[in-house]
Amino acid sequence: MSHTIEPIGTIHSCFKELFGIPRQPGLVTAARGWIEFYPPYNRAEAFNGLEDISHIWITFLFHKSLDNEMSLTVRPPRKEGKRMGVFATRAPNRPNQIGQSVVELERIEERDGKIALHIKGLDLVEGTPVIDIKPYLPYVDSIPEANGGFAHLAPQQRLLVRFSPTTEKQINSFEQRYPELRLLIHDMLQYDPRPVYLRKLTNKKRFGFFLYDLDVRVEMLNGDEAVVTDVIKVG
Amino acid sequence: MSHTIEPIGTIHSCFKELFGIPRQPGLVTAARGWIEFYPPYNRAEAFNGLEDISHIWITFLFHKSLDNEMSLTVRPPRKEGKRMGVFATRAPNRPNQIGQSVVELERIEERDGKIALHIKGLDLVEGTPVIDIKPYLPYVDSIPEANGGFAHLAPQQRLLVRFSPTTEKQINSFEQRYPELRLLIHDMLQYDPRPVYLRKLTNKKRFGFFLYDLDVRVEMLNGDEAVVTDVIKVG
Repeated sequence: MSHTIEPIGTIHSCFKELFGIPRQPGLVTAARGWIEFYPPYNRAEAFNGLEDISHIWITFLFHKSLDNEMSLTVRPPRKEGKRMGVFATRAPNRPNQIGQSVVELERIEERDGKIALHIKGLDLVEGTPVIDIKPYLPYVDSIPEANGGFAHLAPQQRLLVRFSPTTEKQINSFEQRYPELRLLIHDMLQYDPRPVYLRKLTNKKRFGFFLYDLDVRVEMLNGDEAVVTDVIKVG
Repeated sequence: MSHTIEPIGTIHSCFKELFGIPRQPGLVTAARGWIEFYPPYNRAEAFNGLEDISHIWITFLFHKSLDNEMSLTVRPPRKEGKRMGVFATRAPNRPNQIGQSVVELERIEERDGKIALHIKGLDLVEGTPVIDIKPYLPYVDSIPEANGGFAHLAPQQRLLVRFSPTTEKQINSFEQRYPELRLLIHDMLQYDPRPVYLRKLTNKKRFGFFLYDLDVRVEMLNGDEAVVTDVIKVG
């Protein structure tokens, strides 16, 4: 029995590329975005009752993995090369390629009769297809005593993050448009967004990534300090 | 962009019909079942690492609602007739008809090289198509301070449940095969599984439902007492 699903909307995210996206929702609280809904799902009546709800589940497609061959085992970043069963992980490359993320619902906007949901704590890239929205119900979904196995604890904060005086000024000039931009960059960098192989290249001291329409440049110092050297508008 | 999904397995549940199924997972802790996986997903390697994990997310299809016409609004049982936006509820009849339930992983069984996951706290009916399994990660998924809006609190326990002496003996004889059977029947009944229209029919004092291969008969007394009068094996 196969089943066809159609996206009901799409994610607009501060993350324009996969590099630097937090591994789970909620880790980087300043990671903002909004959900655009396609007709007929963009009508206010479909969201009636959501105004009292603080967190929502986004069900989505791992669209960047759709062309990958499915494997029963994956190598999660935490296990540094060890293979785990795909169903013991949340790896994107998985059967049916459906993901779920819980995010904070910051604001419901209605513009020209169309609903947009503004969210934070996001871990999804621009253009992620949305297939469902559900309220987070703490009496059902919150199980603090659960054991999460090898990924039980939040990832470690690996890097000390500093901002050059120039970037402090640059960030100030962008913060009205992008609230908590400094915190966003800080929190992304503290988890060390570089892939494992890049971390090991000690001669490769500079890297960069895109956030919103900004190019963020970083220089590594002493192996565990990330200094933000430039935050420049592109395009 | 439409996307085709294929079930990876199916639910075997103590619930053989929709009547009496708890509204959310975890409400009736003694509700047991197991997940059968289709090849190639039934191999042990796909579950490697799940042995330390206490709770799992089941992503599934609301297959009993697949023929229903999709509506942007629904009438949740709690709101007694008031229409809510479908995205503010967890109603089965929803766009793409995908559900998610967190359940306790009681035991991983390997038999003839095939994996079965034994689960409890289930809210799914026999035959529900499973499309994904993911570990529950408390540092991500557990948000006790979240506000769930109109469905924030667990449903009320509405009925006082009693067992006739005959059924106490009947249940004893089945408990080895069906662990916590008495607790299961008790917890299902305390939430009053009858649909709202049946609750209002004061002359309709008897009802029944199926659990496993058992027919459970109930008689109402004084409006809010449910007396279990018979638990009989069928078929």
